[in-house]
Amino acid sequence: VGEQWDKSLKDLFTESSIKALDDVGIDKIDAIYVGNMSSDIFQGQANLGALLSDCLGVYGIPAVRVEAACASGGLAVHEGLKAVASGLSDFVLVTGVEKMTDVQTPEATSALMMGEDQEYAAFSGISFVGLHALIERLYMDKFKVNPEHIATFAVNAHKNSVNNPYAQFHNLISVEDVLKSPMIADPMRLLECSSICDGAASIILCPLDIAKKFTDTPIEIKASTVATDKLSLPEREDILTFSATRVAVENALKIAHINIQDVDVIEVHDAFSIVGIISLEDLGFVKKGEGANFVSDGQIEIDGKLPTNTLGGLKGRGHPIGATGVYQIIDLVRQLMGEAGKSQVKNAEIGLAQNIGGTGATAVINILARV
Amino acid sequence: VGEQWDKSLKDLFTESSIKALDDVGIDKIDAIYVGNMSSDIFQGQANLGALLSDCLGVYGIPAVRVEAACASGGLAVHEGLKAVASGLSDFVLVTGVEKMTDVQTPEATSALMMGEDQEYAAFSGISFVGLHALIERLYMDKFKVNPEHIATFAVNAHKNSVNNPYAQFHNLISVEDVLKSPMIADPMRLLECSSICDGAASIILCPLDIAKKFTDTPIEIKASTVATDKLSLPEREDILTFSATRVAVENALKIAHINIQDVDVIEVHDAFSIVGIISLEDLGFVKKGEGANFVSDGQIEIDGKLPTNTLGGLKGRGHPIGATGVYQIIDLVRQLMGEAGKSQVKNAEIGLAQNIGGTGATAVINILARV
Repeated sequence: VGEQWDKSLKDLFTESSIKALDDVGIDKIDAIYVGNMSSDIFQGQANLGALLSDCLGVYGIPAVRVEAACASGGLAVHEGLKAVASGLSDFVLVTGVEKMTDVQTPEATSALMMGEDQEYAAFSGISFVGLHALIERLYMDKFKVNPEHIATFAVNAHKNSVNNPYAQFHNLISVEDVLKSPMIADPMRLLECSSICDGAASIILCPLDIAKKFTDTPIEIKASTVATDKLSLPEREDILTFSATRVAVENALKIAHINIQDVDVIEVHDAFSIVGIISLEDLGFVKKGEGANFVSDGQIEIDGKLPTNTLGGLKGRGHPIGATGVYQIIDLVRQLMGEAGKSQVKNAEIGLAQNIGGTGATAVINILARV
Repeated sequence: VGEQWDKSLKDLFTESSIKALDDVGIDKIDAIYVGNMSSDIFQGQANLGALLSDCLGVYGIPAVRVEAACASGGLAVHEGLKAVASGLSDFVLVTGVEKMTDVQTPEATSALMMGEDQEYAAFSGISFVGLHALIERLYMDKFKVNPEHIATFAVNAHKNSVNNPYAQFHNLISVEDVLKSPMIADPMRLLECSSICDGAASIILCPLDIAKKFTDTPIEIKASTVATDKLSLPEREDILTFSATRVAVENALKIAHINIQDVDVIEVHDAFSIVGIISLEDLGFVKKGEGANFVSDGQIEIDGKLPTNTLGGLKGRGHPIGATGVYQIIDLVRQLMGEAGKSQVKNAEIGLAQNIGGTGATAVINILARV
């Protein structure tokens, strides 16, 4: 993940897909899912499923682009799972991709607002950061939280991404750095925001019994759920609660037959630090309003109670929109396979990823486990 | 389908979805699939799955946008089928939508080219019609076909759409009308091209045993397949053969356990008349090069050997991109349920729909049958 001036979107998602195929050691796939939000705007290119099929030289199979704003990647994983579960496909390639630096930043910012309601919210002139700044302001006021507490989330992100070779940021930051960084939309500052960047990520899904032939450490998707909420922030009764996340995680826990406290390591969608904090609450790890203190107490660190975004998350790894939900799965898998290096969480057996589209309108929950 | 100046994209896909729910008589859905190519360009709006979920007031369920250029609708049906087949959803709403008249025609034309390769084909300056004009010119030269033969396809389309209340065009046209219509890209004339227009179409998918509780005439999806080809026309060895269509139909016939001659009524993707004609060949109904004569001999008429696009197809009904693949299913279902009115094909038991994305790069085949 980074500003990949020397690579095209085609380069990014082809390279990532081939790496995944090589890593597993297969030369056959039955279906392709591409998670991507805005190649139409960024590259003037649609039909990414067929494009990836072409770039890989693999023809004659279903190739689908899935879009749900910033949840496009997680949703592509969910759809890939359905392809396997339906019995129609055995080997499914899921690739998330976004190349955002081909346009100017204001154009990228406008594209992000397309995940919100264009008629009611975007046309008012407010930006995607602006909407989240409203959430942050209310949160700080209602729960008597200081900017220092929220900033800790970003500090932890960089602390973790330092050890992730695929991450965009390899520099440590302090609470003071966050509080001194430029104000983007009062009270939100630059270092609370994930980046506009380029990247791609790929995984291979297949039935568990087949996976066992390829690896001694297969990872099972115990549950994959998606839920929606009112699309636009102004429509909601309480902008400090992500209802879609609540519904999706409740459904996922039932399917996986576990309690939320059984989860050892998580990936939350910290497009902005405040979103990561509220997500911890709506996932059920802490009570409403206590997320910021939980974070500033160090509980989300690798040796804390709830290791969170252990390879950097959206803030540290970078947030190439369509790739993010797939990256989350990869980073969880690295933990569950015991391959997370310096970021390794001891005895990590169950992982949970939360991927959000729009201002919380779509939530994808994937629960993964060692077999 | 038409130029819907008084309705927004939201109006179109909400109205269509509610009509489908009312028609079936259910108030519960488990998942939403939206087929759409370019709302990003046409409306500045992404995240259409969550948007439709919101417009319907149905929250907490998976809502997915599926895109594969002009095959977005057919692919949404295919993905909806997987959702049911996976056991994860019982009632799936599949809605296709495109509102193309919110932008100027040149912008819509550019958007259509995004289904082709932006780097290799679009940047050369050739238009989507231009690419198909190359196909038509070579076809006419190689198989000694006159413009009159190709024009017959469009004449048949309007003859059928006259009786379809949902169609855009209710006027009869003659071969002479087609040949006198403006030249768009030599040798292709205006009346060989489907329209830029607005429309939405919705269906409900569910397991067959459940469908039987709602209707005495349930229609089964016997097979649903997708295949890809080299994305860009200049890459292909033979631009007169749609390989994706050939692979997809071969796979579909195997799954459905039928021969192509068992099919009673079909929907082919006549974005341009020449595409409809070549599709008849690659689907296996006639030999390569004999499609145009088959059409001009009247074999695709309602009382002909192979009733084709009996409610107008893309030319007569209109081609609101993301909606087209869903409309094809609806029009087949009307035939199979015996509700096609003046266009009714006698004893129609098996129907086949072919939906194409790009210049033939993606092909979706759905085979439907009376139970």
